[in-house]
This record gives sequence, C-alpha cells and structure tokens, in this order.
Amino acid sequence: MNPIVIKLGGAAGVSVAPVLADIANLVRAGYPIVLAHGTSAAADELAARVGHPCRQITSPSGHVSRYTDPETLELYVMAAAGGVNKNIVAALQQMGCNALGLSGVDGRLLLARRKAAVRAVEGGRQRIIRDDHTGQIEAVNGDLLTMLLASGYTPVIAPLALGLEGERLNVDGDRAAAMIAGAVNADALVILSNVPGLLADYPDESSLIRHVDPARLAAVEGLAQGRMKKKLLAAQEALERNVPTVVLADSRRAMPVAAALRGEGTVIGERVLSIENDRLQIKDLRLRIEDGALQTAEQVTR
Amino acid sequence: MNPIVIKLGGAAGVSVAPVLADIANLVRAGYPIVLAHGTSAAADELAARVGHPCRQITSPSGHVSRYTDPETLELYVMAAAGGVNKNIVAALQQMGCNALGLSGVDGRLLLARRKAAVRAVEGGRQRIIRDDHTGQIEAVNGDLLTMLLASGYTPVIAPLALGLEGERLNVDGDRAAAMIAGAVNADALVILSNVPGLLADYPDESSLIRHVDPARLAAVEGLAQGRMKKKLLAAQEALERNVPTVVLADSRRAMPVAAALRGEGTVIGERVLSIENDRLQIKDLRLRIEDGALQTAEQVTR
Repeated sequence: MNPIVIKLGGAAGVSVAPVLADIANLVRAGYPIVLAHGTSAAADELAARVGHPCRQITSPSGHVSRYTDPETLELYVMAAAGGVNKNIVAALQQMGCNALGLSGVDGRLLLARRKAAVRAVEGGRQRIIRDDHTGQIEAVNGDLLTMLLASGYTPVIAPLALGLEGERLNVDGDRAAAMIAGAVNADALVILSNVPGLLADYPDESSLIRHVDPARLAAVEGLAQGRMKKKLLAAQEALERNVPTVVLADSRRAMPVAAALRGEGTVIGERVLSIENDRLQIKDLRLRIEDGALQTAEQVTR
Repeated sequence: MNPIVIKLGGAAGVSVAPVLADIANLVRAGYPIVLAHGTSAAADELAARVGHPCRQITSPSGHVSRYTDPETLELYVMAAAGGVNKNIVAALQQMGCNALGLSGVDGRLLLARRKAAVRAVEGGRQRIIRDDHTGQIEAVNGDLLTMLLASGYTPVIAPLALGLEGERLNVDGDRAAAMIAGAVNADALVILSNVPGLLADYPDESSLIRHVDPARLAAVEGLAQGRMKKKLLAAQEALERNVPTVVLADSRRAMPVAAALRGEGTVIGERVLSIENDRLQIKDLRLRIEDGALQTAEQVTR
C-alpha cells in the first residue's frame, strides 16, 4: 500500500488535535502515513520571547518566506525540530500511534541547496539578502521513510533540511511535503491549513474552488493570496513527481483528514479518492466515518 | 560487531567538536556508534533568555537534577531535541557521518515513569515537588537502534523520554546512555564530560582514579561530587545490564574518544579495550592514532 502524505500547517489558527486523531485512526486501520508539519507560529513565538522577532521576505513574484538570519535559524531549529515536532510525536503516541520525529538533517532525509542571494521587495524596492539560511530541496531519502513505515513507525517530519555544506536550512513545509510525497510514491498529498482551500474570491470562504485540473493549475495561480501561492507551487511539484492527487483542505473542521480524503477542499488532480484492493484508488470515495472512527472500505462494505 | 555507546555531556566547558570528529572516524572505520547527549547548558541558556531561569533540585541523597515544571519542560524539549540534537547531527553530517537524531519520545525509544512526587532539600529542609516532569527510564527500544545501525545510520539521542501517559519527560542523560548501552548490548559505554574522571580529591585533577573494580563501586561513591554521583549511578546501571566496561573520561583533550577507549579516564569494569576479530575486546589496547586519524587494529598491525 502506498503512503498518504499529510502536511499540517504551522500557522496560528490551524487545528492540530483533530488532524492527529484522524492520522492515528488511519494508521490503526493499516494505512501508512507520513506527516510533515509547519512551524511558523511556534517559531514566531519563540523569536518574540527572546527578543529577536521574525521578519518576512517577499520575493519579486510575491512569495512570502521567513527571513532566516543565523540567529533566527537557531531559534527556528529549536521550535521546529524540538517544540512542534516532539509535541506532535507525543500527542500521536498518546493516541497509540508509534510516531517517530525527524527533521531533514537526520539521515540526510532532505538535502537542499541554500539560496546564497535572495531577492526581496521592500517598500516597492528590490534588495539582495545574503545571510538567509533558506534552502530549496533537491533530494529526499525516501528509503529511510519506507524502512520506518515498513517497521510500523509513523514518520513526523520537521521543515529543516541539510545543506550541501552540512548546514541546517529552513525549508518551506508545503514544498517539503510535496517532495516527500514524490519520494515515497504517495497516493495523495493532503495539505491542511486554516482556510478551506483555494478561494476564487479571497477571503470569501463560500468561493471555494472544489477541483482544479492539473493542466489548468497555472490559470488559477493568480487567485492565490499570500501563503496559498506556495501551496499551489507545492501541488504542482507533487503532481510533477507523479503524486496523482493533492488536496488543499481545512484543519478546522471535524475529522479533517477524512473530509479531505473525501474530496472536501480544493482537489488538484484526480477527483475522488477511495480505497480498493488495499490501495487508495482514484475512482470513488469509500472512506466513511462511523461511530466516530474512520472506517476502511472493507469495513464499510461489510 | 556490538556498538559502543558514547555519552557527550551537555554542561558548559564540554568540548564537542573533537568528540564528534572521533565518532566520525570510528564510524568510518566500521564501528557502530550510538551517541547520547546532554543538554544542560543549552537548556539553561534558553531558559534564561526567555526569562524563566532554571532551578535545581537536590535530593536527600545529594543528587542534583533540573526542576522541570511545565514551562521549563517546553524549553527543555526545544533545547534538547531541537537545538543541541540537530547541531550535533549537522556537524556529524559535515564530517561525512550519516547521523540521525532522535529523542526518547520518537518510536518509544525511551519509556519512563514520571516521578509524581520528588523530595527536595532546600536550606536543610525537605519539601515535596509535584509538578516536576522528570522520569526514570523503564524500557529502551533497542530494536529501533539496531535497525538504524544496520542501515548505516549513527543514532544521536536527546535526553527526553515518553511517559507512561504519553507525556514528554526530562531524563538524566548519563542514566539514559547507560540504559541504551544495555539495550544494544554495547561493548563499552564512554561518558565524556568536562572532568578527567572520578577524582579521589576533588577538584585536584591529578587525583584521578584510573580503575574501579565493579565490586568496589559502592566504596568509591563517597568520593563523587555533584554531577559525578549520577555518572557513577549510570555506570552501575550499565554494568548491571552486562555492559563490560564504562569509562568516565575528559572531552577536553585531543581525540577524546580514542583516549577514553585506551583507558585514559576512570575505567569501571574490565580494564583495557582493544579490537580483535572485528570485535571490541577487553584484553589489550589496539586502537592507535596515526596521521591524525583513528586506526583500527587491522590497519595498525599491517
């Protein structure tokens, strides 16, 4: 059975516990899951507490990212691989799921190239930033994840990568999840955040776009605001790596992973998911929630 | 070949880079190594920066430990599993060693029982502390470490454990290393810190006790000051778990791991280490340093 990769956003307002409960249910039902998480709110909070508040970089194309100077990097590593990662792992363990936390530096899980010079737009003017420690992922150690999954562990991955010179780098969590999904031949990538998906008329949540044909992804890019731009880029990267379905969905609802796998959110790629012959199929929905637990197709059709 | 478990202290004054260089050399020469690390200075520093400075608990028997209230726990987790762990992993990766960082909550690596009520001595009076999040390790997932070692990874372990109720717990790094050494059938446990070993006349470093017969361990306990008490307790726990040799040694010298394996420090248990028939033997020293690199017995005798 191929894994499902789930990205849990790190922004304020993202609902964590219901996502973890769904993951524990899926793992209990036998589905291999890889969880990648963000860290933005926790990194911001730690940075503010030590008096080194975060700054953002806006690229000329409008993508927003964390300005990771050396001091911010130290705090980011602590928040991402320490605080957020181990909180999630302990919470999953409490639910009976044998989670195992890693960051991209561990076992060369995520290898990235540092962007030595980053163009930033500030007040309408461009400038070059040279001490940013952000990376672009170039390789994923899929074998490590496959080995852990085969041994019954649920990998939980913090958004750090190992640079080509052995340095620790901040990487975008959505794009990391996309690269991971490609490396483990995931059947689906589910990106959960604090919005329902891609909105045609941001921030009107009733304007949710329910399906995007991969061939038309470029056409909807102009609708994306802020962080949603990176999520569409991540979706594109996952599709390019043969992940058939990406779902951008809301963490703030009941049973958010189950809902996303039902196609509730913005589905990019094949339209509806199901499980058949022990494999997540791209045909018809068979996942159901019964008695508060996620049921597999076998259990439902019985 | 059975692993060597190395504990790298987390106190101020511990020399990190030479220890990691030795580890990378040993791994390159084919020796399986598990590295457990401390975190005290980094946790103290973070706690001070956010304005929640650390406090110590002194037990009636004189053991000193960190008072880990819920707020301290959050900071401790970030410093241990985030900052210190990933710094070490990245440094080893830079040296070509495929390090993989874990904490005890990951994959149920270290399961511990929380001490619900801790007796503390303050100003000559005893009091009971009930919100301390410190644990006593009860089980180690040796299979996880064995699997990682067999796949060429060098596990690097932060001193956190998973409590019986899924909570994260602070555990003593020396005693964690001892439990790990027992679980992986280690040939030796090397505990490196910022002192030469057990001193007969603390702090006179020329009073180093070079060898302690395990049967006489209780007799030397009275000589130990401060943190050294826990190291002797850890040594005893390792010996009880059939680890034949424990070396308490100094991180602050050149090639500290090689020196410790030559028996320089306080050797508790079998007296001298060597490598023979691809196994660390307890007979005669064969590890040598040549051209700045640790050589194996085979390379030396050639």
